[in-house]
Amino acid sequence: MNIVAGRPPRAGSVDYVDGRTRLFGIVGYPIEQARSPQTVTFELRRRAANAILFPIMINPEDFDDVFPRLLRLGNLDGLVITIPFKKRAIAHVQHVGPIGRITGAISVLGRSLDDGWTGEMFDGAGCVSAIRRRGVSLDGSRTLVLGAGGAGTAIAFEVARQKPDILWLHDPDKDREETLAVGIRAAFPSLQLGFGKPSFDELDILINASPVGMLDDDACPIDVTRLPRHLVVMDAIMDPDRTKMLRIAEESGCLAVYGREMLDAQIEAACDYMLSARQLQSNQFDQLIGPAGHD
Amino acid sequence: MNIVAGRPPRAGSVDYVDGRTRLFGIVGYPIEQARSPQTVTFELRRRAANAILFPIMINPEDFDDVFPRLLRLGNLDGLVITIPFKKRAIAHVQHVGPIGRITGAISVLGRSLDDGWTGEMFDGAGCVSAIRRRGVSLDGSRTLVLGAGGAGTAIAFEVARQKPDILWLHDPDKDREETLAVGIRAAFPSLQLGFGKPSFDELDILINASPVGMLDDDACPIDVTRLPRHLVVMDAIMDPDRTKMLRIAEESGCLAVYGREMLDAQIEAACDYMLSARQLQSNQFDQLIGPAGHD
Repeated sequence: MNIVAGRPPRAGSVDYVDGRTRLFGIVGYPIEQARSPQTVTFELRRRAANAILFPIMINPEDFDDVFPRLLRLGNLDGLVITIPFKKRAIAHVQHVGPIGRITGAISVLGRSLDDGWTGEMFDGAGCVSAIRRRGVSLDGSRTLVLGAGGAGTAIAFEVARQKPDILWLHDPDKDREETLAVGIRAAFPSLQLGFGKPSFDELDILINASPVGMLDDDACPIDVTRLPRHLVVMDAIMDPDRTKMLRIAEESGCLAVYGREMLDAQIEAACDYMLSARQLQSNQFDQLIGPAGHD
Repeated sequence: MNIVAGRPPRAGSVDYVDGRTRLFGIVGYPIEQARSPQTVTFELRRRAANAILFPIMINPEDFDDVFPRLLRLGNLDGLVITIPFKKRAIAHVQHVGPIGRITGAISVLGRSLDDGWTGEMFDGAGCVSAIRRRGVSLDGSRTLVLGAGGAGTAIAFEVARQKPDILWLHDPDKDREETLAVGIRAAFPSLQLGFGKPSFDELDILINASPVGMLDDDACPIDVTRLPRHLVVMDAIMDPDRTKMLRIAEESGCLAVYGREMLDAQIEAACDYMLSARQLQSNQFDQLIGPAGHD
């Protein structure tokens, strides 16, 4: 026998995960396209947290069975929610923030010390933040939001909060457009609303929050091939990265704001929300600063 | 306005997790002490897999509700199971390997292409492997295994497979000791068994698989303060790292094999098992090479 004496050898190891690592996740279907694992983990690390955000794929038919059990993992502290679960997630949290209640959907979840869960919708704040990070003020602007679905509703509310001169709303589904208008009027009674698509010369900012152009390089929510140079154009679509509308905007000399920037702009606010929830008891959730507190 | 034009800036990001990362976990309660996140992730990376093993804490009272839903996460490919769930996990897999069936417990789970799950018990093989990695042969040895619980059963079977001259079994619970002896006799009819604690001079290898010494620096499963130098002493306990029994062994000049080495020795075999399962359909699980194929 060739005895190997002394203290035992150590196995190889990595330094970014261990038994004490706190878990965060992004839940969606599919999930391969998600960038939060890289970017939110980076931000959590930057704050010196021993934490990681990993991708979680749940089959849509399993969601209502699996998701509430996921929330019971003892070392899970927060979640980001993406397509198609932003509306369905709301049924599984004890507390929903003000924008989540208005939009009926949540994009970020945090867990309290006593294991309660709260959710809030950050998509609208992310969009407004992304535009502001480019040095563009929405205050006093003439802004059109295309689409009155989940994303459009969240974005329109955040734009409204920025005090534009006029907020134009447009959705081919006129019932949906009207529902959104009623909600905005109730929250911002003095804001001037417009309906339909005005001439681009009458606008400062154009935001696409409709699905037109998603996974389709040739689809476009506007029917022109040239835009006036002064227009700021934002597309909430993330895949493709550079939609046909953004290509037209850049070829016209406009400032183009990418959908990806909307997610990137949410990273700090989402980390603040998730990490703050962990300092509270469930009955203190109303103290949480939601998306409105950030840009 | 101070417009920031051009292509959008990129958020900071890490390079060890993204939307395509496949998930592995170690499930236990508590989980902070686990080393598999560092060591198994290292081994998965070494094999060029985009994969991470993260710690998963499940409250014991939640286990039977939460664990089967965890198995339905679409991008989870494998699990390591630790205390206190090795027996309870067996109820939730469709297929159990031969050592798992004998011991009634599993320590590693793999998922097939058609989302079936198989489990096998690797603890015994890890113990034998750890001893062999130190250059010690169990073939022809006189070996005593203290403890006939889950760990003791798994270890005694693997020792028996190594063709010792005599295998001594000892457990204060004589029913448990007898059950283990009956199982070993059935599987290895020609093996000589002994019962109780022989004199240390009659032994080559001493293995503690009982809980005596766990989380207790002063408890010891042997009642001497000095051991003969020729004895190889292994302790399956992982916390503390250096148990009182290992201290006595080292002070006596014996070769001491640590509990941690047992886990480290399982890493490659566990990765082989989990990654191989992913190449199979459920009805091919019997082709999987279990712990006996490795050392």
